[in-house]
Amino acid sequence: MRGNLPSNRTRGFAHERDLARKFYDHGFAVMRAPASGSKAKHLQYPDLIAIYQGKIIACEVKTTRKFRAIYIDKYQVDKLKEFVNRSGGEAYIAIKIIGSSDWFFVPLDQLEKTERGMYKVTRDNLSKGIRLEALISIVKGVKRLIDFTK
Amino acid sequence: MRGNLPSNRTRGFAHERDLARKFYDHGFAVMRAPASGSKAKHLQYPDLIAIYQGKIIACEVKTTRKFRAIYIDKYQVDKLKEFVNRSGGEAYIAIKIIGSSDWFFVPLDQLEKTERGMYKVTRDNLSKGIRLEALISIVKGVKRLIDFTK
Repeated sequence: MRGNLPSNRTRGFAHERDLARKFYDHGFAVMRAPASGSKAKHLQYPDLIAIYQGKIIACEVKTTRKFRAIYIDKYQVDKLKEFVNRSGGEAYIAIKIIGSSDWFFVPLDQLEKTERGMYKVTRDNLSKGIRLEALISIVKGVKRLIDFTK
Repeated sequence: MRGNLPSNRTRGFAHERDLARKFYDHGFAVMRAPASGSKAKHLQYPDLIAIYQGKIIACEVKTTRKFRAIYIDKYQVDKLKEFVNRSGGEAYIAIKIIGSSDWFFVPLDQLEKTERGMYKVTRDNLSKGIRLEALISIVKGVKRLIDFTK
């Protein structure tokens, strides 16, 4: 009964809500974008912003079933860049590996451009992504990035 | 034809969108809350947040046709307080006087509690509210509050 299965879109929102809740439970202020689905809106928002005492994280949220390269539309990367240029803070592609509880955060400067004008998180860059727990600790000043990479 | 007139709610959203656009045009990153209308959601968002280089403004948006006292539900004030406790920054009630182009920003510490457990912006505190233009200049560091009050 295919009609009873949640769509990719619905499932994506469920994961996004889960991510919002995790940031919230760690003391962050969180705001999710209105679910528009339209590219034509005047003001473009990131999927999710999480703020802790003036430190701002803006994310586009992606899900994948496998550890593989992830492709992202140019307009999504552009709106993230525009947002953090204005707000300050940092922008990430937040990637959920479905079936695990892991979230990986890949900074925008690690995206690669594809020949078709999209952006790509390579499998290698995905595997080097910052885990949610590490990101939260870094933002809250508990640990430094180096503590997680050595 | 009453049915063809926009509802208060629809009109409120139009003004909120207008405010978002004004902040955006002055270089702020802006995000409006999803229009839920529900108090029962797990994570409560302000109506609007506007951020400029790490400086965060969170607002509940109200409209009025007359220069009069404005009443605000306790849960709306509580969610604003909670948000800025987490995010840092400042929280305001943003009040649009319909028919003028003016927006007045009243800080939370100027709200008064009513006997029925609501909050109130008195007519006097509304008239002392910070104008949008002044707020933007203050946040951007162009002017100080004192420049507008003397």
